Amino acid sequence: MSSDAAEKRVLDAVRQRRELVNEALDDDVPMKSPERLYEATRYLLKAGGKRLRPTVALLTAEALADVEPLSENYRSFPALDGTEIDVMSAATSIEVIQSFTLIHDDIMDDDDLRRGVPAVHKEYDTETAILAGDTLYAKAFELLSESGADPANGLEAVRRLATTCIQICEGQALDVEFERRTRVLPEEYLEMVELKTAVLYGAATATAAVLMDADGETVDALYRYGIDSGRAFQIQDDVLDLTVPSEKLGKQRGSDLVENKETLITLHARQQGVDVDSLVGTDDVDSVSEAEIDAAVEELRVAGSIEYAEAKAEELTENAKDHLSVLPDNEARDLLCDLADYLITRGY
Amino acid sequence: MSSDAAEKRVLDAVRQRRELVNEALDDDVPMKSPERLYEATRYLLKAGGKRLRPTVALLTAEALADVEPLSENYRSFPALDGTEIDVMSAATSIEVIQSFTLIHDDIMDDDDLRRGVPAVHKEYDTETAILAGDTLYAKAFELLSESGADPANGLEAVRRLATTCIQICEGQALDVEFERRTRVLPEEYLEMVELKTAVLYGAATATAAVLMDADGETVDALYRYGIDSGRAFQIQDDVLDLTVPSEKLGKQRGSDLVENKETLITLHARQQGVDVDSLVGTDDVDSVSEAEIDAAVEELRVAGSIEYAEAKAEELTENAKDHLSVLPDNEARDLLCDLADYLITRGY
Repeated sequence: MSSDAAEKRVLDAVRQRRELVNEALDDDVPMKSPERLYEATRYLLKAGGKRLRPTVALLTAEALADVEPLSENYRSFPALDGTEIDVMSAATSIEVIQSFTLIHDDIMDDDDLRRGVPAVHKEYDTETAILAGDTLYAKAFELLSESGADPANGLEAVRRLATTCIQICEGQALDVEFERRTRVLPEEYLEMVELKTAVLYGAATATAAVLMDADGETVDALYRYGIDSGRAFQIQDDVLDLTVPSEKLGKQRGSDLVENKETLITLHARQQGVDVDSLVGTDDVDSVSEAEIDAAVEELRVAGSIEYAEAKAEELTENAKDHLSVLPDNEARDLLCDLADYLITRGY
Repeated sequence: MSSDAAEKRVLDAVRQRRELVNEALDDDVPMKSPERLYEATRYLLKAGGKRLRPTVALLTAEALADVEPLSENYRSFPALDGTEIDVMSAATSIEVIQSFTLIHDDIMDDDDLRRGVPAVHKEYDTETAILAGDTLYAKAFELLSESGADPANGLEAVRRLATTCIQICEGQALDVEFERRTRVLPEEYLEMVELKTAVLYGAATATAAVLMDADGETVDALYRYGIDSGRAFQIQDDVLDLTVPSEKLGKQRGSDLVENKETLITLHARQQGVDVDSLVGTDDVDSVSEAEIDAAVEELRVAGSIEYAEAKAEELTENAKDHLSVLPDNEARDLLCDLADYLITRGY
C-alpha cells in the first residue's frame, strides 16, 4: 500500500460493508425454533469478525457492474445480463461457511476462545456445536441457491462453493497430518494454506462474478486474485504471530512456535539449518517468557526466514493485483487492489 | 403388502439397485489424497446399508419417465423435458447425506457401532470423523449440481436438498432436547421424526422428480409420499426395537426403553397412565434381562401402545400410497407402492 490514505480508504470500505453484511446475516440466519440450536448457530456470527471475505465479494460485484461503490442495493443488484440479483447472498453464504469451519475447527483443535468469546463448543457443548456448524453449512447453500441470478449461473456458483468446501476439508486434514509428520516441504505447506484458507477468498470473488454473469476468463482471473491474496493473508498471519505484541494479537505472541505449529517461516528456517524444535523450551503458552520469544524471533530473523515469508506474501499480493486487470478501471477495482495490500500490511 | 410375492419383488428391486448405487458411490466418492480423510469418508459408505433412499429416488425417476424398470442407464436418463440427466447423482447425493448424518450423529451420541462395524470416530478419531462428515456434506451438493438437468431444475433440487439438511439438523436438535425434557407430546415426537428422518425420504423423491422436470403438483405429491412413508418407517423402527429378537436386530432388543428414549409407543403409554420410567429397572443395555424386556413389552401391549404405533404407521403408509396417483400406472409405481408397505412390514 502506497499511503496511509489508501489504508484508511480500505478500512472505511470494509467498515461500511461490514455493517450491511451484519444486518444481512441477521436476516439470513434468523432466530427460530429449536432455540438452543439457532442461538448456537448465530453465536459466532454475532461475535464479530472483520467480514473481509464478504467485502471482497461485494466489491467484486461493484467493480464488474462498473457502478459507484455503495450506490446500488446489494439485494437487487444489476448483473451484466440485465437480471437483478441478490449479490449479498453470495457474501453472506461465504461468511456463513467461514463461521461453520471455525466452529468445527475449534472442536477439532479444542480451542477455548474465538473472537474474544468462548468457542461454541465451550459456550454450549460439543453436540450442539457440531449441529450448529452443520446447520450453517446447509444454510450457505440454501442462501446461494436463492440469489435470483440466471439459474445456470446460480447452479455454477453452488457447484463452486461445494468444491471449495471439499477443499477446505482437505486442507484441514493436511494441517492435522502435518502436525504428526516430522518433515513438511514448503510447497506442501503452501498447498495446505491454499486449500484451508485461500480457496474461500477465491470462492468469494468467483461466486460473485459467476452470479454477475461474468465470462469464464474474468471469473478465472478473479478467482486467482482471491487465491493469491488469500495465501498472502495466511502467510502474513504467520508473520504477525511472531511480530505483534500479545496484547494487540489477543493471544500469546509466538504461540505457533510454542505449540510447534509449522509455518512457512519455520520450514524455511529448517532449510537454513536452524534447530527450530529447540527455539522455545516449553510447549505451554502460559509459561513462556517474552524474552524467550524475542530470542527465537531474532534467530528466525537472522536466518532470513521472516524476510522470506514477507517476500513470499508480497510476491503473491503482486500476482493477485495483476489479475484485477480483467476488471473495468473504477473505484471498486482500486479498493480490491488496496485490500490485497492491506491483507499483508495490516498490523493484526 | 398383500403377498409374499410382492415382498420378494420389492426386495429384488432394492437389491438390483443397491448394486448399481454401490458402484456409483465408489465412482462419485473416489479414493484420493489426503488418504486418511478419504478412507474415513468412504468407510461407512462401504460398510453396507440397504440403500432404500437411493432406490426410492431411482424408482421415482423410472415411474415418471414411464419406462420399464432398469431398462435405461441412470447416468443418462430421459427426463420429461427431453434432456438426458444423471439421475443417479440424485440417488448418490441422498445416500451421501444420509452417511454424513450418521457419522456426525454417532459422534454426538458416542455410539460405538454402526452397520456392524466401529463408528467412524471409533475406527479413526473424532477430528477425522467430523471432517469426513463435512467432506461428504459438500460432496452431496457437488454431485447434485452436476446432474446435467436443466439448470433451473438443478438449482431447485440443490435448494431442496439444502433445506432438507437444515431440517435434519433441527430434528436432531429436537431429539437431544426431548431427552432432557420430562414431557413430550406425541405430536412433538412426530414432528421430530418428520424432521430427523422423513424429510430425507421426501428429498429422495422430490429431487429426482425436480431433475426429471415433473410439474409442481407432481413434485409435491411425491414429496408427501416420501414424508409419509419415511415417518411410517421410523415408527416401525421403534416397534421393531421392542418386538424383534436381539440377534436379528443386531443390538439389544428394547434398548430404547432401557436408555429412556421416548418413542410414539412410550408417549402413548404415558397417556394411558403406564409408569414408563419404571418399566425397566436399569439403564444399562448390557445388564438387562430378556425376561424384564418381555414383561415391559407385555405391559405396553396391554396398554394398546404397540397397536397404536402400528396403526399410525399403517395410516401414514396408506396416505403415502395415495399420493402415488400422480404417477403413470406402471411397474415402477407399483414398486414404490410395495416399497411403502415393505417399510412397515419388514422384519428388521
